[in-house]
Amino acid sequence: MIAEKVLFLVLDGISDRPCEDLDGLTPLAAARTPVLDRIAAEGVCGIMDSVAPGIRPGSDTSHLALLGYPPQEFYTGRGPLEAEGTGIHMTAGMIGFRCNFATVDADGLVTDRRAGRISGTEPLAEAIRDGVDLSALGIEFRFEAGAGHRAALALVGEGLGDKVSSNDPKKEGARPLTIRPCTDDPADAETARACNEFIRQSGEILYGHPLNVRRMEEGLPPANLLLIRGAGKMGELPPFSERYGLSGSVISAATLISGIGKVVGLEHVPVPGTTGSVDSDLDAKVRTAIEELGRKDFVLMNIKGADEAGHDGKGIQKRDFIEVIDTALAPLLDLKETLIVVCADHSTPCSVKDHSADPVPVVIRGPGVRVDRTNRFDEVSCAEGGLHRIRGRDLMPITLDLINKSHKYGA
Amino acid sequence: MIAEKVLFLVLDGISDRPCEDLDGLTPLAAARTPVLDRIAAEGVCGIMDSVAPGIRPGSDTSHLALLGYPPQEFYTGRGPLEAEGTGIHMTAGMIGFRCNFATVDADGLVTDRRAGRISGTEPLAEAIRDGVDLSALGIEFRFEAGAGHRAALALVGEGLGDKVSSNDPKKEGARPLTIRPCTDDPADAETARACNEFIRQSGEILYGHPLNVRRMEEGLPPANLLLIRGAGKMGELPPFSERYGLSGSVISAATLISGIGKVVGLEHVPVPGTTGSVDSDLDAKVRTAIEELGRKDFVLMNIKGADEAGHDGKGIQKRDFIEVIDTALAPLLDLKETLIVVCADHSTPCSVKDHSADPVPVVIRGPGVRVDRTNRFDEVSCAEGGLHRIRGRDLMPITLDLINKSHKYGA
Repeated sequence: MIAEKVLFLVLDGISDRPCEDLDGLTPLAAARTPVLDRIAAEGVCGIMDSVAPGIRPGSDTSHLALLGYPPQEFYTGRGPLEAEGTGIHMTAGMIGFRCNFATVDADGLVTDRRAGRISGTEPLAEAIRDGVDLSALGIEFRFEAGAGHRAALALVGEGLGDKVSSNDPKKEGARPLTIRPCTDDPADAETARACNEFIRQSGEILYGHPLNVRRMEEGLPPANLLLIRGAGKMGELPPFSERYGLSGSVISAATLISGIGKVVGLEHVPVPGTTGSVDSDLDAKVRTAIEELGRKDFVLMNIKGADEAGHDGKGIQKRDFIEVIDTALAPLLDLKETLIVVCADHSTPCSVKDHSADPVPVVIRGPGVRVDRTNRFDEVSCAEGGLHRIRGRDLMPITLDLINKSHKYGA
Repeated sequence: MIAEKVLFLVLDGISDRPCEDLDGLTPLAAARTPVLDRIAAEGVCGIMDSVAPGIRPGSDTSHLALLGYPPQEFYTGRGPLEAEGTGIHMTAGMIGFRCNFATVDADGLVTDRRAGRISGTEPLAEAIRDGVDLSALGIEFRFEAGAGHRAALALVGEGLGDKVSSNDPKKEGARPLTIRPCTDDPADAETARACNEFIRQSGEILYGHPLNVRRMEEGLPPANLLLIRGAGKMGELPPFSERYGLSGSVISAATLISGIGKVVGLEHVPVPGTTGSVDSDLDAKVRTAIEELGRKDFVLMNIKGADEAGHDGKGIQKRDFIEVIDTALAPLLDLKETLIVVCADHSTPCSVKDHSADPVPVVIRGPGVRVDRTNRFDEVSCAEGGLHRIRGRDLMPITLDLINKSHKYGA
């Protein structure tokens, strides 16, 4: 029997190093994970360098690699991917940015880089879209509000570069910076000019906006400045469906991940109640994934909370959330005819509080797989498995071969 | 002690996936293989991606990789390799094709793509060589009859391209196609023109040939048309002897494999009674390999039958033939001073009935090898061996190093 459907389950940042407060175990090894362990026992396991050994990946570069778009070839910065995830349809040549709504005081100093973790900024975004003077800006733009204090910007036009700095001073009590080109290329100068003009105009629009007036009356920091960063030029990504002959969906509460899915043509399927944090409704997410597998050939599902615990350096919390994830995954065990790939995108060791290059565990379970003796899904156990050590970019070709969608090279 | 002789034993397509009719074992794992298991026990084992993880290799690309000619660099299509194997000495720039003798009826429809599986076509080939009008053809050619209904053609001349279609309609009851250039390059147009002219002239020669007249009298389909396909331009392959400082022979009943051996300069040693199928005289083949190792430094031996069983989807037959192979290999156990490499060129899973990208088991046994704990030659056991997961292109460098023929990189 050969599987026709594929589920990629990315347990974001679940991989770790030995933790002192877990008696030298990783959170994944310390956790009770009967579901993941059974998937490991029924599958072929290994470890994986998302990009390459010793290369510390972002969530963006790793997910691109896992989807078979090696970042060395396809990555063009986080901005365009966040912009796509936030709802801007990015096309080749557009310059994308991540934005924060922030607060400046009367002296022009940034007093809150997240405007009091404001939410409900759609009216502000609309005012910016309506109010910015395009003739003064000189080019077209797209602007969308995201979750919380987040937003996204894209500049649209010919001859725009993406090698520009940010206006984010990175600390509070400092003046916002002027955005500058990082090269002598006139295209970068043009982008920097447009950014500074957009920040100036949007600041004026935000300053007097009723929503901000009300916030100030309530003693809340107004969202009267945009901090923009992560400039990147959108490239040409060959659509997933054409590259592999598979229809697909992406399920993720993180705009970066849904953005990556969307730029390669996966349909983003929102799941109410999912937050990208440890309070996310994982049962709904797993249910949605199983439903999507009825409609599509391929589903990418990203579960994020363990990464957050790693960034916070909380090993015990990470272990506990892994157990919550494991319980939620139980319905996947019934998907006997689906090829299930479980992995992390990168390690997020509690001792590092950031991503690391440590390889991640990976298991492939489903029809045709050469089951090995590994029966535990953790970093050390999977290193003994039959897949050995692969790279993120190998995962999609291996998957395609297992579902009989690979092309013969030679005769 | 350091070995001086090397035997590469390629068990074509022997590698598989779990088979339902073998209780979830692969044919290799299900087979009783005391000889291969002893080689595994006395050697270092691993798994190997002939080309790269997830890349589904042909027999041609995989053998090129195993011989240290990575196909990404050296592969130029099957035609030139088949032509060389059929007895045409291919040199750089020649365009090689595989041919079938086929049957067309009075209406010009292909009624048998293999001319009733004709054999003994040498008189037909000779008539074509003698009869084709070179001034009308415009260029030189080589033509050789192969086994059964097979033959090979090469076009010789300046400015010939290899991006041309085939005249094979791929089904019976259809008209043969006109060969067309696949690009705007005049070189491809010239090749297409020459092919069509060659097919026209050879058809006329075959039509009235006494051998065909006799076949028709006997109610057999005449071989009155050539179907040609697999165009490829012969490249420059650095000779094996210069590349590695080793003399070598190839032993294979498959013209593709003997062709690959010959294009890199290995001497093809025919073995009477070998067929490339499960009825092959394997004892004679093994005897010949051992004799060749007395004369040469390196012998490549390919044993084909297991691949055929995989293509037919017959797991039990594949298992049984593997046991036949194993018995025939017993004399190799005495070659204590020879480095023996046993592997497959690719997997041919019974569930796929074609090649797959699943890695193949590999063992290296002989002086100097770091013997690991693996004592069973199958896909899952070898994955636990000391070689880990290597690529086909790694095999020749590893081998050369074990026989002290590698070059130091650095000081």
